[in-house]
Amino acid sequence: MLWKTDCVVEGVHFLRSHEPERVGWKALSRAVSDIAAMGGAPGDALVTIFSPPDVSADYWDRFYAGLTRAATLHGIGIAGGEISRHPSTIAASIALTGTVPRGGGIRRGGGRPGDVLCVTGRLGGSLAGHHLDFVPRLREGQWLAASGAATAMMDLSDGLASDIPRLAAASRCGFVIDPAKLPLNPGCTPANALRDGEDFELLVAIDPVAVASLREAWQEQFPDTPLTPIGSLTEPDAGQPLDERGWDHFQIP
Amino acid sequence: MLWKTDCVVEGVHFLRSHEPERVGWKALSRAVSDIAAMGGAPGDALVTIFSPPDVSADYWDRFYAGLTRAATLHGIGIAGGEISRHPSTIAASIALTGTVPRGGGIRRGGGRPGDVLCVTGRLGGSLAGHHLDFVPRLREGQWLAASGAATAMMDLSDGLASDIPRLAAASRCGFVIDPAKLPLNPGCTPANALRDGEDFELLVAIDPVAVASLREAWQEQFPDTPLTPIGSLTEPDAGQPLDERGWDHFQIP
Repeated sequence: MLWKTDCVVEGVHFLRSHEPERVGWKALSRAVSDIAAMGGAPGDALVTIFSPPDVSADYWDRFYAGLTRAATLHGIGIAGGEISRHPSTIAASIALTGTVPRGGGIRRGGGRPGDVLCVTGRLGGSLAGHHLDFVPRLREGQWLAASGAATAMMDLSDGLASDIPRLAAASRCGFVIDPAKLPLNPGCTPANALRDGEDFELLVAIDPVAVASLREAWQEQFPDTPLTPIGSLTEPDAGQPLDERGWDHFQIP
Repeated sequence: MLWKTDCVVEGVHFLRSHEPERVGWKALSRAVSDIAAMGGAPGDALVTIFSPPDVSADYWDRFYAGLTRAATLHGIGIAGGEISRHPSTIAASIALTGTVPRGGGIRRGGGRPGDVLCVTGRLGGSLAGHHLDFVPRLREGQWLAASGAATAMMDLSDGLASDIPRLAAASRCGFVIDPAKLPLNPGCTPANALRDGEDFELLVAIDPVAVASLREAWQEQFPDTPLTPIGSLTEPDAGQPLDERGWDHFQIP
């Protein structure tokens, strides 16, 4: 069983001017993305909403419309929740159950030196809109977990520069990446891929022996989505430093 | 399986000046109280915290100290959670699992006309401090559920005047209560019991045939806590009106 909590806060994850449908979509999709990163399937959600006095019921109707659209897409049941007044700020917290085959979940800590680091999709520039409209990589995460070649996996919520060190540290490895290999969204530089965050793509460590055949099979399965090798895990003392101070640890060209 | 989410928000459920340990204690205890009201036992918690820039890590250390003290008391595991920046306001949301024997959970909707409405403990004046320090009625809820005589149960979070109509409506019943019978905390009037809220006592509907023997057994089991009959459920068209406009529907002497 998987169990996840996540939240969205006005002024942090969205603005008052954003369409409430997209905010509701994002609120649930963020939690789903973490289920995807375990190779799991989502179950049921509880929704806690924080509502300032100047926010109407219409706002929450629209928020729930977007949230329900995401729930329907993934077969998630909205099982209940909680409503609280809030002095100033719209926010919502989502608790989500999920399942994964026994022993089949992929954690952050299973990577080994030499494993190839790959990312799904393209990175950077999420603030232009993707962060409100993304579709979590559920099928992709399940497929990668079932392949038997993925040793560690996580979703990219804070930018590669923050997230890679987390996966590497959990796996007690160092890492090296090649910024020139990063798959970029149009108009983006490697710095965007490293720092922007909220890509909600998957970062996965793959057994180097299996990576070529896995990528071939991936291309057949997901022809529209690249799975790009960007570097590898190393022995703990090699590679980049293993803390989480973020993007400035990378030598960006 | 039971699954609950609840939250505390600065300015709504607590003030910045309240000791963080008590706020953490309250955050978890609120969710536990709902597990108690089902006759269940709590399991594990996920904790989502919302932290403004002017709140230090020390605040959250103290918050977690109080939360952990409540968790230890009830055998709850803190399984994980989420941290988000917040522009202005301290808040926390708790997701809590629980269990109840198959078919043994007591809901709000099982009450029948003629069932006797009882409350545990004493009501009113919670803002003086009880709302931050209360101990959820877990053992009492489990005992009432196991008695076989409880038909409907809920915890009193918003005051009797709001909560009784909810239980009655869920049970498709009307209700009558006698304000003179309300068990009051020192210095409180029936109006306090009806309106103050955050008592976190249990409201329970009991089969009228069993109520006398149940109360005798209760007194032996919980000698320090009264279980007080305050009225009864009625046919839907009898009794008090069945909406949730609150205390003003009651004829307080």
